[in-house]
Amino acid sequence: MKALVFHGPGQKSWMEKAKPTLVQPTDAIVRVTHTTICGTDLHILKGDVPEVESGRTLGHEGTGVVEAVGAGVTNFKPGDRVLISCITACGRCPNCKKQLYAHCADGGWILGHLIDGTQAEYVRIPHADNSLYPVPADADEEALVMLSDIFPTGFEIGVLAGEVKPGDTVAIVGAGPVGMATLLTAQFYSPARLIMIDLDPARLETARQFGATDLVNAGSEDAVARIMALTGGRGVDVSIEAVGVPATFDVCQRIVCAGGHIANVGVHGKSVDLQLQDLWIKNITLTTGLVTTRTTPILLQTVQAGRVDPAKLVTHRFALDQIMQAYEVFANAAREKAIKVILKA
Amino acid sequence: MKALVFHGPGQKSWMEKAKPTLVQPTDAIVRVTHTTICGTDLHILKGDVPEVESGRTLGHEGTGVVEAVGAGVTNFKPGDRVLISCITACGRCPNCKKQLYAHCADGGWILGHLIDGTQAEYVRIPHADNSLYPVPADADEEALVMLSDIFPTGFEIGVLAGEVKPGDTVAIVGAGPVGMATLLTAQFYSPARLIMIDLDPARLETARQFGATDLVNAGSEDAVARIMALTGGRGVDVSIEAVGVPATFDVCQRIVCAGGHIANVGVHGKSVDLQLQDLWIKNITLTTGLVTTRTTPILLQTVQAGRVDPAKLVTHRFALDQIMQAYEVFANAAREKAIKVILKA
Repeated sequence: MKALVFHGPGQKSWMEKAKPTLVQPTDAIVRVTHTTICGTDLHILKGDVPEVESGRTLGHEGTGVVEAVGAGVTNFKPGDRVLISCITACGRCPNCKKQLYAHCADGGWILGHLIDGTQAEYVRIPHADNSLYPVPADADEEALVMLSDIFPTGFEIGVLAGEVKPGDTVAIVGAGPVGMATLLTAQFYSPARLIMIDLDPARLETARQFGATDLVNAGSEDAVARIMALTGGRGVDVSIEAVGVPATFDVCQRIVCAGGHIANVGVHGKSVDLQLQDLWIKNITLTTGLVTTRTTPILLQTVQAGRVDPAKLVTHRFALDQIMQAYEVFANAAREKAIKVILKA
Repeated sequence: MKALVFHGPGQKSWMEKAKPTLVQPTDAIVRVTHTTICGTDLHILKGDVPEVESGRTLGHEGTGVVEAVGAGVTNFKPGDRVLISCITACGRCPNCKKQLYAHCADGGWILGHLIDGTQAEYVRIPHADNSLYPVPADADEEALVMLSDIFPTGFEIGVLAGEVKPGDTVAIVGAGPVGMATLLTAQFYSPARLIMIDLDPARLETARQFGATDLVNAGSEDAVARIMALTGGRGVDVSIEAVGVPATFDVCQRIVCAGGHIANVGVHGKSVDLQLQDLWIKNITLTTGLVTTRTTPILLQTVQAGRVDPAKLVTHRFALDQIMQAYEVFANAAREKAIKVILKA
């Protein structure tokens, strides 16, 4: 089979590789029908995720058809269409029993990280019963690929952890794919205002089409001053960090109101200077996290009911064997006006 | 009347001052029967709270007897015995309507800070209906003084914000009065282990008598290494910061388990280095806050029912006119083995 293989920082190729086989009785082999590229894959290629070994197939999102299952798999059989979760969960360790699947003792984020991933014709999915979801018969699989990672990430780590409530003023810093997923799923809770902050005018305009009520271009104006002015000096109820650098975290901690929430969604490589001399008195809540995917079934229901359309985020489509070209487009997302790219087998 | 008056950093005196009078119809004048000294008063005397003006009567804790009430006060009448909350609440601003009384638009922590406080023979209490509580007939007023500030602070900002649950492993960094109040009120929720961390062996021994299951002397051992060993490398479910300096905050962020809570109770004067490169993935919740005192009625019930005995924290007793001597003792708390001092009029 063919797979997109990492060969160390800066190096990848679309190459022939052995088709995966069942290793554990709880495994499934899935023929990939749709996959995508995540910002995390770009981080791996930059060398930011050193535990990814040379030779690893990348990718942790996708849909497919079950090809084979181990003797311990009961929820799926060959021929079933499935959504692949970015999180592998054994379902029986202490963290899984708390729905903290991200910290599964025999899973978590391992696909395209510690084991071979979904940017390939076939993928082995460990603990298949807890790591795959059935695709409804009439579902749009392109939309469902957004539910492998970015939608549950934005919803769980942004909206739910931030406790977005009806009438709230919410600011989202970063209009990338996860920021957009946060923007779309925040609307489940009817906030009064959704302020989107980014540097790219095109992404801000897309955010407006996706429901943002106020746009702040942090490249051309002082984001903190603008948001404080927009809120009459009060600050926002919920500030959501969806970038992962100290400067964007700093905006979030400066705009949160007394009693408010800061939800950190971004993946950080450095410590940040927490202004505890100002925040200790403000009764704020700061949350962090890797998506658990405990909300994947809920999000499937919202998509099927037409409450949200994740396919809106798909800007580019390629055949799976055009993945090298798709990486070029996604790595230059601003220039290409790309949000998510879909690869179809 | 006599009052303990701040005259700028390092200077105070017990001096004659005009008895307060009703200013607003919502005011009450209370004759103070019991008061105490808070670590915050020592901070003011060090010059750490620059908004406190010279000439200010200190103190924000106490009990007393209502002497006079304004025309707008309906819950209290002269002769009523009352508990004075450290937080003044108008009850009608947006923050009060969210029980965020600490951030009341016409109150919050103002006693002994922005207006004259309780270390005096009489005190004016604004918004008396929302800032005083009736003292039950058979109550121990010494115990109730602990409910003006330190018990609701430890309970709300430590235990409730930290979401202490049955079976949890909880670490409290700092065995001062608020740390001890946190230790005592955490036991309402039946945690499995209560680890107390401090530098003072005497305070640690007191913590053991108050229910701590494990003691860590951060002066003689590596607190983080010890706690990780105590928890089999997992870390604690809840780490509670009850000191207010970067080093103790750092212990809290290093010992929290995946999915755990860091509850910051300490008053900080500096920023801290938040290890977001480690914490972003850990699904942790960090909370901060000034006590709202929304739990004062609940705590009164627990005291009356014998579920907790705040009087345990009282180590020294003085007559009110011995307050200069009481400050000497409290300012040397380790040497004097003092936790809380009571001043009785």
